[in-house]
Amino acid sequence: MTTVNFLNPVQDLIPLVEARMRLQADRYHSELGAAIQHLLSSGGKRVRPAVALLMGGMLGADPDRLVTLASAIELLHTGTLVHDDLIDGALLRRGIATLNAKWTPAATVLTGDFIFAIAAKMAAGTDSVAVMHLFAETLAIIVNGEINQLFTSHGLASRENYFQRIYAKTASMFELASGAAAILSPVDEETKDSARRFGYEIGMAFQIVDDVLDFTSEQATVGKPVANDLRQGLITLPALYYYEEFPDDSGMKMIIEGNRYMGAAMDRLVDSIRQSDAIDRSLAEAKEYIDRGSMILSTFPGGPEHEALDELSGYIINRLT
Amino acid sequence: MTTVNFLNPVQDLIPLVEARMRLQADRYHSELGAAIQHLLSSGGKRVRPAVALLMGGMLGADPDRLVTLASAIELLHTGTLVHDDLIDGALLRRGIATLNAKWTPAATVLTGDFIFAIAAKMAAGTDSVAVMHLFAETLAIIVNGEINQLFTSHGLASRENYFQRIYAKTASMFELASGAAAILSPVDEETKDSARRFGYEIGMAFQIVDDVLDFTSEQATVGKPVANDLRQGLITLPALYYYEEFPDDSGMKMIIEGNRYMGAAMDRLVDSIRQSDAIDRSLAEAKEYIDRGSMILSTFPGGPEHEALDELSGYIINRLT
Repeated sequence: MTTVNFLNPVQDLIPLVEARMRLQADRYHSELGAAIQHLLSSGGKRVRPAVALLMGGMLGADPDRLVTLASAIELLHTGTLVHDDLIDGALLRRGIATLNAKWTPAATVLTGDFIFAIAAKMAAGTDSVAVMHLFAETLAIIVNGEINQLFTSHGLASRENYFQRIYAKTASMFELASGAAAILSPVDEETKDSARRFGYEIGMAFQIVDDVLDFTSEQATVGKPVANDLRQGLITLPALYYYEEFPDDSGMKMIIEGNRYMGAAMDRLVDSIRQSDAIDRSLAEAKEYIDRGSMILSTFPGGPEHEALDELSGYIINRLT
Repeated sequence: MTTVNFLNPVQDLIPLVEARMRLQADRYHSELGAAIQHLLSSGGKRVRPAVALLMGGMLGADPDRLVTLASAIELLHTGTLVHDDLIDGALLRRGIATLNAKWTPAATVLTGDFIFAIAAKMAAGTDSVAVMHLFAETLAIIVNGEINQLFTSHGLASRENYFQRIYAKTASMFELASGAAAILSPVDEETKDSARRFGYEIGMAFQIVDDVLDFTSEQATVGKPVANDLRQGLITLPALYYYEEFPDDSGMKMIIEGNRYMGAAMDRLVDSIRQSDAIDRSLAEAKEYIDRGSMILSTFPGGPEHEALDELSGYIINRLT
């Protein structure tokens, strides 16, 4: 695992983000504070807040407004995870119990709603209508993506669908983190647009690498069965490339037709995908996104935040090795 | 039933509110548009949007921004109802099927989230950070109120708890409608504050009357069992006043202790409450809120919107007769 030192330039700000998120629940029911405490204790890398803090730091935004923005973004992300885990019936995330594993569905729905509400309050706290708008738009995109997935009865083996899905699921939030930080910075429209695209590119890469990790990791590392998505009928990039190369694979056909396909036959299919060049091709695709992001980054001012964003790009790809 | 003509001064704007709400779903999954269409077809009186349009109209706000605000408020209200109905397992609302009666819990959770997202987009569309902030704060208050209720194991017979609950559930949204409309108007801070308080007063009255109606209506009119709240262990103002007068009533004691109390014994208790002066005392309490609202209203400029707000206050009380 690569050492995570892209956080260096913002290491003093991240604890402020954590504190500001926790503070939001203080005036409300104690169970809400406890839930937020629990959710934030999972020890995520805070990649999304880091993107906002680094981009805004590089472009000269006020650190206090950036901390507010970064808190809003991490809360928005957390709120979507709470409802996701409820919908999927997931009992663990990053090795700790999900909220729905401990609480009733009713309490879990409401806690997610509450987190959305305090995320929106923090977004309003940036004092920027443009940020608020982007923030609300991002939530609409994320939820719309999940609705799309829910109403898709079986595995869609289409690149277009895949890229739309990972944009909604992941890249939209990176786009928000990077784009909103630029909105809060004293820069021109072109720079704001570049910052948004930078977030998009690294966000797309981030999700592709996640989808590769789903195939290449061992169960102990990721805390869920390997090829969890495929086992649930969801076709990600490695499976998609594999299918393009072996269109007659009977297992893939079964999944695409929406049939249950499990046990030893599924294990064999997962092994075939792991051993095919679909993994390398997926990584090459992620690398292209990262390279486009780096091109954009090269047009930005130098300094420690710039270097950290470069390092973060490397981290996104190198999580694998 | 009183004729609803408080809508007269805004009758041209209400269809724009409806259209703007529907428009929001256009760029997303068709099922979301269908769901919003279904939810908006229930023929509510649009009291909350009317408050915003009338207050803003009276105070000189731009009609287009008011339409955006009114749409945001009705969407926020609709989103909370979607999650409420899911949590309560309600199958009907105002005589039409709830979303959860037709859809899976997953789709219902996500549709509520989506409605929150487009409501937040519309709120950002008012171009006012102060409105956005109030909007997010209101959602936090509403959800916090529901969490409080969820974690209260049995009937709380306390006025303080009751008034807190109806503030969170209903008055906060009226406060938002009236207060945010004033924020968008060319008026001083004192007037904005008065507008907020006006919304608070009529909102409190609105919910007390709703709670009285729960006892006095016949089942056919309200579409659910009479004294539905009490049957679910929730103590509203009429039951509270009854209990204060008859602290030894065994039925009330059972409910307060969280025991199931149903069948003929419950019917007898409901009849006792209906026949006691608890109903009149509750209405007198609602009337006091309305009177305080009217006092505030009397300090505002005259004109058709002013008259309509007076009429709306009358409608809130006279829905009963």
